Amino acid sequence: MCGTEFFTTLGVSEALAGFRPRRRSGSERVLREQALGRVPASAVASPAPLPGFARSTVDGYAVRAADTYGASDSLPGYLDVIGSVRMGAAADVAVRPGAAVSVPTGAVIPDGADAVVMVEYTQSTLPGVVEVTRPVAPGDGIVRADEDVASGATLAPAGRPLRAQELGLLAAAGVVDVDVMARPRVGIISTGDEVVPPDTPQLAAGQVRDATASALAALVTEAGSEPSPRGIVPDDADMLTKTLAQAVSECDMVVVSAGSSVGARDMTVSAVRALGEPGVYCHGLAVKPGKPTLLAECGDVPVIGLPGNPLSALVVFRLVGLPTLRLVGGITAPAPPATTTATLSRSVPSAAGRLDVVQVRLSDLAGEPAPVATPIFGASALLSLLTTADGYVVIDEAATGLAENATVTVTRY
Amino acid sequence: MCGTEFFTTLGVSEALAGFRPRRRSGSERVLREQALGRVPASAVASPAPLPGFARSTVDGYAVRAADTYGASDSLPGYLDVIGSVRMGAAADVAVRPGAAVSVPTGAVIPDGADAVVMVEYTQSTLPGVVEVTRPVAPGDGIVRADEDVASGATLAPAGRPLRAQELGLLAAAGVVDVDVMARPRVGIISTGDEVVPPDTPQLAAGQVRDATASALAALVTEAGSEPSPRGIVPDDADMLTKTLAQAVSECDMVVVSAGSSVGARDMTVSAVRALGEPGVYCHGLAVKPGKPTLLAECGDVPVIGLPGNPLSALVVFRLVGLPTLRLVGGITAPAPPATTTATLSRSVPSAAGRLDVVQVRLSDLAGEPAPVATPIFGASALLSLLTTADGYVVIDEAATGLAENATVTVTRY
Repeated sequence: MCGTEFFTTLGVSEALAGFRPRRRSGSERVLREQALGRVPASAVASPAPLPGFARSTVDGYAVRAADTYGASDSLPGYLDVIGSVRMGAAADVAVRPGAAVSVPTGAVIPDGADAVVMVEYTQSTLPGVVEVTRPVAPGDGIVRADEDVASGATLAPAGRPLRAQELGLLAAAGVVDVDVMARPRVGIISTGDEVVPPDTPQLAAGQVRDATASALAALVTEAGSEPSPRGIVPDDADMLTKTLAQAVSECDMVVVSAGSSVGARDMTVSAVRALGEPGVYCHGLAVKPGKPTLLAECGDVPVIGLPGNPLSALVVFRLVGLPTLRLVGGITAPAPPATTTATLSRSVPSAAGRLDVVQVRLSDLAGEPAPVATPIFGASALLSLLTTADGYVVIDEAATGLAENATVTVTRY
Repeated sequence: MCGTEFFTTLGVSEALAGFRPRRRSGSERVLREQALGRVPASAVASPAPLPGFARSTVDGYAVRAADTYGASDSLPGYLDVIGSVRMGAAADVAVRPGAAVSVPTGAVIPDGADAVVMVEYTQSTLPGVVEVTRPVAPGDGIVRADEDVASGATLAPAGRPLRAQELGLLAAAGVVDVDVMARPRVGIISTGDEVVPPDTPQLAAGQVRDATASALAALVTEAGSEPSPRGIVPDDADMLTKTLAQAVSECDMVVVSAGSSVGARDMTVSAVRALGEPGVYCHGLAVKPGKPTLLAECGDVPVIGLPGNPLSALVVFRLVGLPTLRLVGGITAPAPPATTTATLSRSVPSAAGRLDVVQVRLSDLAGEPAPVATPIFGASALLSLLTTADGYVVIDEAATGLAENATVTVTRY
């Protein structure tokens, strides 16, 4: 299923299904206000019912529904107004037959009442009396004490990053802190004799600044994880092995962007092999760009060897690195990417048996429902293709291309 | 166009087009590695061409293309190998007619060469000589010195948040810091006699914990802005006016979640009026939920009065608060939300002339292309509707509902 030859390639979906490193990032307790995007390590249960008391959902009069039956504009019901409930306070009066209590939206429903008549369906012509012009059924205008959340019910499930609304619900329930997965720590190693740090002011002939490490750190951060930059290693097998060993011992996942020459790529394989079992899972992915990709596991830590040029490295990291990172970080909820349906401006050829990732620019975004996706072609050595792109289209292994005017799903950057 | 009456409502798209507060958040200089998601205040130009030198895109031999014309397997061309180029180093030899220089992927193209023959199309049978079995055209196997980015070309446009790939390109160009818009500071004020802080362990009768402020802070943070919590103000006009005045003087935008009663809602209007021109832009939006929404401008600071219940407040903040925040934060690029095309599980009625926001749950996410969207109904007092939802469907003002099995666009949470 997976070869040791350099270009024995595995399909992307096959690789994603089969490459399941055991590493998980552990858990920690964080304050609710710091928990946005964090992943609950276990389901968070509500300590009490919410809202906790029967509440009015309208401004009006708490009544016994039976007292309003048959009421209409021409034949209103008359009820004695025996009090009112203030916001944030208990009701100090109970509703008896023939009586009504004034309640604002959100107030406590007094004992004895089983419905609230909206103020719009009442008139106050006589002091101390309200005319009801429309009947209500029991439960109208009321949320029950446990209607939002029952005691013990799940406020937030395990394995799905906390969104704004979960944080709101946790606040409503008085949950102060949450047990979440630790942010996975991702070691980022760059290799290549030609690669120098990005803050190098003047380049010597043949040198390039390290673009991949910066972009990978950003993707790792966006994914809610913690990048751990490990610097640039020259094309030296011993140094790479040493750097990789240390990264594996300190991180939850390690990414190596290989030098671009064949020799440099082979060095990553040697370094992984030197670290022992289970080692290389797969070397070579049936994807363009991104063929020279390495998937491996050192101990339980996933190690991903990325292609040498930045564009390919970023394409592959999105494709297989981010799903692996979700796994390590305990995200079990599906993470469908942000997509836009578009019409392809021109035909795009593709070899069968290989996944093609085509960068596209979107036009006419305002013009729903279908903007036009224009493919951007160029050598995969050109990083600017990615900064020009608004997203990408994936051409599946089975397809031999996409026709002009085809409807495509664009995964948005 | 915009009334002063409580429920003189304005359409959402009309309000979004017309409500254009003048406030902008200013700019600041940040290091590139801290710039993910930040918004360039002006376009970032490349100080130099990239990659900066002509590079090989393959492992092979740098040649004069003319020397390979007519070469084939049966009639190879023979070239003298006169040297090689190391990664990250200058070429210390020039290619003369009849000669070839060995180059790895990414290496400097030596003077005199105008193409690179891939090693796959060569053979080395005699020492010092390479057999070329396929012709190349000038430019084959090479990226020009300015092919990725020309000197002075835009690395990142103004007004669009920096993505991973822009940070990569900035690193490649050696850009150390970037002039970006300051993060807009968003004051968040909660009001209501019934509202208590979320860390209140035990509630008295009729009290509720402040869910809205926590959720709003999360949405503000997600939008790349800085929440500035201003606490809870009881239903007291003077106190609200004072708190609002201070927030307006210290923030770039202020959000007030009103108490849920009519009286409490009116207090926000009074407070805005007390702060002077230009004041209330619009009071009442044709949207469900969210009708009692206030849009105002105090000086140049936008003030948004949200409905009292958390669910409505969050729906409206996404709809009109986030676009306003993008405006203030200098984001000029369109921000199409993450959407999924789905099939509606049942019909949903809607009143014409009003925008309806329907919470939905998505099933069968893996089953592309169209998952099923199941509407979630319930009182808008129930915050748990939002935590159950995967996203929402907007029913336009003109529509009177959506039919079962209709194809809908779900905006994802």
